[in-house]
Amino acid sequence: MSVKVQFVTRADLFDAYRAPLGAALARAGISAALAMDHAPEEVDYIVYAPQSDHVDLSGYTRARAALGLWAGVETIVANPTLTMPYARMVDAGLTQGMVEWVAGHVLRHHLGMDADICRSDGQWVKHLPPLAGERRVGVLGLGELGAACATALAGLGFDVAGWSRRPKEIAGVACHAGDAGLGAVLARSDILVLLLPHTPATENLLDAARLALMPHGAVVLNPGRGALIDDAALLAALDTGRIGHATLDTFRTEPLPPEHPFWAHPRVTVTPHIASETRPATAALVVAENIRRGEAGEPLLHLVDRAAGY
Amino acid sequence: MSVKVQFVTRADLFDAYRAPLGAALARAGISAALAMDHAPEEVDYIVYAPQSDHVDLSGYTRARAALGLWAGVETIVANPTLTMPYARMVDAGLTQGMVEWVAGHVLRHHLGMDADICRSDGQWVKHLPPLAGERRVGVLGLGELGAACATALAGLGFDVAGWSRRPKEIAGVACHAGDAGLGAVLARSDILVLLLPHTPATENLLDAARLALMPHGAVVLNPGRGALIDDAALLAALDTGRIGHATLDTFRTEPLPPEHPFWAHPRVTVTPHIASETRPATAALVVAENIRRGEAGEPLLHLVDRAAGY
Repeated sequence: MSVKVQFVTRADLFDAYRAPLGAALARAGISAALAMDHAPEEVDYIVYAPQSDHVDLSGYTRARAALGLWAGVETIVANPTLTMPYARMVDAGLTQGMVEWVAGHVLRHHLGMDADICRSDGQWVKHLPPLAGERRVGVLGLGELGAACATALAGLGFDVAGWSRRPKEIAGVACHAGDAGLGAVLARSDILVLLLPHTPATENLLDAARLALMPHGAVVLNPGRGALIDDAALLAALDTGRIGHATLDTFRTEPLPPEHPFWAHPRVTVTPHIASETRPATAALVVAENIRRGEAGEPLLHLVDRAAGY
Repeated sequence: MSVKVQFVTRADLFDAYRAPLGAALARAGISAALAMDHAPEEVDYIVYAPQSDHVDLSGYTRARAALGLWAGVETIVANPTLTMPYARMVDAGLTQGMVEWVAGHVLRHHLGMDADICRSDGQWVKHLPPLAGERRVGVLGLGELGAACATALAGLGFDVAGWSRRPKEIAGVACHAGDAGLGAVLARSDILVLLLPHTPATENLLDAARLALMPHGAVVLNPGRGALIDDAALLAALDTGRIGHATLDTFRTEPLPPEHPFWAHPRVTVTPHIASETRPATAALVVAENIRRGEAGEPLLHLVDRAAGY
């Protein structure tokens, strides 16, 4: 008898995952029926990436788990009918993509590239950046993504400090924790990278008071979650030049509405949520492994702790 | 008796090196007189970074070596009076700076950053780059700088091939050599980095015929030497879109004249020779070590082979 896997996703994601997930399950010796229209009460596993948080899962009475295609976990808080075990996506491709975006934009700001990219006036203006070892980068959030980025930045020679709620240790990175640790990292970050999950505790984490702790002219990169930043406070800090630039990949509303002041602000770069995209080729392997574990009675990977919110 | 060290440099370089070089020599137990106005026939070592290649060194009859502040070696070819042993600068700071510029601009083009940096029209245009492992980068020249850049790019996950005249081996980099190897590297390089020395053999290396071997829309980065590229051929290839973009840090004439078509071309980024700058703090240690070796009768580091031109 075959395992019934329901895609609670947009149709294009079903199209993208159908072949690699089917192949991965076949290699694991699992006969599976992948569909978007199984009767809910017959479904064994949900592949979860809905367009709306309001999708009703209450009919999925026998589903052993919902297997997310996203790294974020807001979804389990937002949807009260998502009561089965929920595994978020931890995709090597997603982590690699994030490292590339973060390394690229940190180097961009470190080197002062924008002045050269936008210049065509024939003015030879020599601007020699310091070496990376003299550039202090802070990474808030040292989970899978934050740790990988902090490690890559340290590998490029940057002077990297990291912060997480619970103490961590990462080779080459000065790790801080707790409230006092947060202030210390903010105060020394020429470039700050936000890679925290969005939880009630991190909502508006970067507010006016915390922005005021940062060095004058510091750069903020947010490939994490839009709600980590108090938008109005950031805009005010950009207007005064206290924050020199913000490069933002995530927003409270996506797509970012055309009238949002981030678009036109000369000190803001908007990237359209491309830093961390799940790649079907690698992500399908993670989903397949969790179904294999579920069928073998083994604990699932990347289960979300509802109490902590991540 | 103290060693006489003459700075054949701009006055600002003498100012910048005087303190760190004096300190490094003192630590090596060498008493030295650093100046710009020793009588030439009394000078033991020349620190060499002249504003013009036409400076006459024929009066320096007892100088044991000229110790360059530049990585390039064109200077020994250009100045027929530079007949003493010549050591070029191999500065850890310079190598690190080059790695940062190359990694930054490769990531910039890989991620398609310019579209986001220059966009403020409120259009949310999702452009998901491939992962670095699917991006083929070629590095021409695998000396100190090229090898360091190729290694760093491989560390970031790029699919890196390198080329040098003589066969080399670098972990994680597919190394090619000779004429056939050059064609193979050009044909597979989505992004090409030029880090060859300027010699008669490399003059105009990237000409129309070799540009035609590259993938359509490939990107050229030149932090090496301006003369490696046939400017007219590159402009023609940019006009047709065969070459998608060129980011250039070195030019045949520097500063690049305001009327040069590179400035205004929409597919060209000019950076003002900032990729590889010698840093006095680290470079002074290299000069001091060579003076120590000279005084101890040991072979000098980084001597240039005049026949090969590097």
